[in-house]
Amino acid sequence: MNYKKMDSNDFLALTSIVGKERIFIKDQIDEKYSHDQLGTAVSYPEAHIQVKDKHEVSKIMKYAYQENIPVTVRGAGTGLVGGSVAVMGGILLDMSLMNQIIELDKINLTLTVEPGVKLFEIYECVEKEGLFYAPDPGEKRASIGGNISTNAGGMRAIKYGTTREWVRALEVVTPKGELLRFGSKVVKNSTGYGLKDLIIGSEGTLGIIVSATLKLIPKPKFTKSMLVAFANREDAIQASPRLIKDYVLPTAVEFFEKQSLEYNEAFFGTTIENGSFNAYLLLSYDSNDEESLDKDLEHVKKLVLNQYGALDAFIIDPSSKRSNVWNIRGGFLEAIKASSDFVDECDVVLPRSEISGFLSYVREVSLKLNVRIPYFGHIGDGNLHIYLCKDNASDEVWHERVTKGFEMLYQKAFELGGLVSGEHGIGIAKKMYMQKLLGDEQMLLMQGIKKVFDPKMILNPKKIV
Amino acid sequence: MNYKKMDSNDFLALTSIVGKERIFIKDQIDEKYSHDQLGTAVSYPEAHIQVKDKHEVSKIMKYAYQENIPVTVRGAGTGLVGGSVAVMGGILLDMSLMNQIIELDKINLTLTVEPGVKLFEIYECVEKEGLFYAPDPGEKRASIGGNISTNAGGMRAIKYGTTREWVRALEVVTPKGELLRFGSKVVKNSTGYGLKDLIIGSEGTLGIIVSATLKLIPKPKFTKSMLVAFANREDAIQASPRLIKDYVLPTAVEFFEKQSLEYNEAFFGTTIENGSFNAYLLLSYDSNDEESLDKDLEHVKKLVLNQYGALDAFIIDPSSKRSNVWNIRGGFLEAIKASSDFVDECDVVLPRSEISGFLSYVREVSLKLNVRIPYFGHIGDGNLHIYLCKDNASDEVWHERVTKGFEMLYQKAFELGGLVSGEHGIGIAKKMYMQKLLGDEQMLLMQGIKKVFDPKMILNPKKIV
Repeated sequence: MNYKKMDSNDFLALTSIVGKERIFIKDQIDEKYSHDQLGTAVSYPEAHIQVKDKHEVSKIMKYAYQENIPVTVRGAGTGLVGGSVAVMGGILLDMSLMNQIIELDKINLTLTVEPGVKLFEIYECVEKEGLFYAPDPGEKRASIGGNISTNAGGMRAIKYGTTREWVRALEVVTPKGELLRFGSKVVKNSTGYGLKDLIIGSEGTLGIIVSATLKLIPKPKFTKSMLVAFANREDAIQASPRLIKDYVLPTAVEFFEKQSLEYNEAFFGTTIENGSFNAYLLLSYDSNDEESLDKDLEHVKKLVLNQYGALDAFIIDPSSKRSNVWNIRGGFLEAIKASSDFVDECDVVLPRSEISGFLSYVREVSLKLNVRIPYFGHIGDGNLHIYLCKDNASDEVWHERVTKGFEMLYQKAFELGGLVSGEHGIGIAKKMYMQKLLGDEQMLLMQGIKKVFDPKMILNPKKIV
Repeated sequence: MNYKKMDSNDFLALTSIVGKERIFIKDQIDEKYSHDQLGTAVSYPEAHIQVKDKHEVSKIMKYAYQENIPVTVRGAGTGLVGGSVAVMGGILLDMSLMNQIIELDKINLTLTVEPGVKLFEIYECVEKEGLFYAPDPGEKRASIGGNISTNAGGMRAIKYGTTREWVRALEVVTPKGELLRFGSKVVKNSTGYGLKDLIIGSEGTLGIIVSATLKLIPKPKFTKSMLVAFANREDAIQASPRLIKDYVLPTAVEFFEKQSLEYNEAFFGTTIENGSFNAYLLLSYDSNDEESLDKDLEHVKKLVLNQYGALDAFIIDPSSKRSNVWNIRGGFLEAIKASSDFVDECDVVLPRSEISGFLSYVREVSLKLNVRIPYFGHIGDGNLHIYLCKDNASDEVWHERVTKGFEMLYQKAFELGGLVSGEHGIGIAKKMYMQKLLGDEQMLLMQGIKKVFDPKMILNPKKIV
């Protein structure tokens, strides 16, 4: 694609849409707008524009479409695969000021928000009303627009599904600048092709989300957690699918090993009680009835100790230690990132039955390539987060190792029925692996769909397709 | 589109794929393959072919694509919008012999089936293992392929969502005859565009589902129901959103009025206990803990009697009366159909808050057009089933009334934020209303997507787009 190089006429035209205060060019562009949280892809836009409402978005897209200027959408910038990096220059459309909560509808149980609203703001808004938005991605400062664009999963996907299941409707500006509405406040929809579901997970390549209507439910009144300790990884992993099948659905089953706790201690100086075991499952359950929840936890405790080979099980007091363990779990990515100059990530997702074999292979790869590869995961839903660490390697050696490492890991994952990304998306960083997994026919379908929405290929170019 | 009229060479070629026993032409084609359950659209295919496996499907599609022969897919024929009727002739691809259960995976909690497996067979297969496939469309003899193709909803959508949320992976034969796999056994997926979700609800226009991998969960151990009686429709309808928000999520909230019971009595000769009230909500709750479930029901009983203006509330003994009430609820469509020569249906879905106003309007339309319009609905999820009855009208008068009636009802629904179809789909019968609701831009997107999958437009022509 031959995009237009932006010039002073373009900057003038765009300034006439948003005013002087919200457009930044050349030296005015802050370094942070050249990359996302992981920073693998680095590229500056030609113009960084903060939009305030959907009409501005529509006008900018009409102009960009007419002039053939690429546009990349950015929310809170917490992505990990370069999805929000303006790799072809052009306009970086910054949605962070579109951060208004539009409507909490207590009869239809929906929350309508602008895309720049952050995940933690959604929780705050609905939970004080006794309502619940269940998706629980690790990064609470992410924007809801970004969550929808990657179909973010998080810890409660076992019981409550991913972001996709919690989006009732989307307002979207197309690459041509049209404002369309997909879905409604309704619970069911069999009205034509699932365009809403096509936008979800499309990483800002098909249209720009300018509002989202989310599904809510009554908030479960009680949530309790249990930390289960095992002698080794194998035992912990084998217990996980049984925990899900044998009794009652947990909201979360997280897995980590001693190693992750050590990284955490080194970086944050904190650790958990009962932190001396080799492997752990961290479970969470919820209910409207405390007595019944306590019975469930007691039952689960017996199961893990008597049948699943756990060494110990600690019911976590929600007032203190729970938040401690969960906070420490939430800090693993930070701790691992802090342990090395540079890390790159593999967000692979596998059938639960294949986790154990895959993690053995991860150790093999680590030894073979001489790369440190810490990991942890949402083991209940088969989604692992695996980090290749650069450590003291030269850039050249690192590049070689990380390329080979990803190649080996994804190849193994595909053999085991896994997919490239469980929740972080494809962006630019994981494109080649997705192409390998899905094959030419599926890539052609995706490219065809992209062209239907975006004939000039101006929206988030080079991503996914 | 100019399709090829099938000739003896085509029949020979197709016979060489499936053998003589499973292809029917001309007079050999049974009348029932010219329509679906509602029978609004009637058209014979040129060849009715029963396929036995995905390789046959692939070979037939390669042939049909090359020869430009239209292909319409049919499951159990329980559709209501003409989606499985071969309106352009050509091949009717009958999937009912592809009815094998391929794998029950107890570790990953998935069931993989061929598309002709019927809904009740899925329940039987998984429930004896203590597992649960939650979608609960009224017609249990429908095929799972059809359920997926219309994103069937059913009674438990409030708590468990629609069919979409229960499909982990699909194997699909494209119009060109390629076999593709969308999704996997995994719980989360952010790997490129949601092609699986695009196939779901596409009513056999984008590809042919040849296997489906469904999500399962542990079966809730206890389910109980409550029949709540109200003095009038208004009170019942207003209680519904409060029941959903104020306490704990019901699995189902069904609504009916005395009238529906009367149709049922006239047709089946059966009625419910406590059947003398004007309006009812039929509620269902589930739990793993019987004590806690009983507490919930007692709590709900107090709410409906003390706060929501119910006249009475009957907890339904699962061993006898429950099934009676639910059976009678399940028979409403049959009873209404039996009350008239011919009925046509509106499967509109609305925000819960708008049901009451909409039903008042239904009565207005009924009076104005002099058409009997019985209805009932999955009120908890805003999905109403509304039947226009021909009764003694002449064909001409009926056509005029039904056209005007649908026009008025859909127009009102759109004004209230509703959609054309909650669960039955668009097919051929509801196309014009969908076009009106969605507008040209969305229709162009859908047509564009259709052409990406099916450049010759041979698969289920004239449906949806």
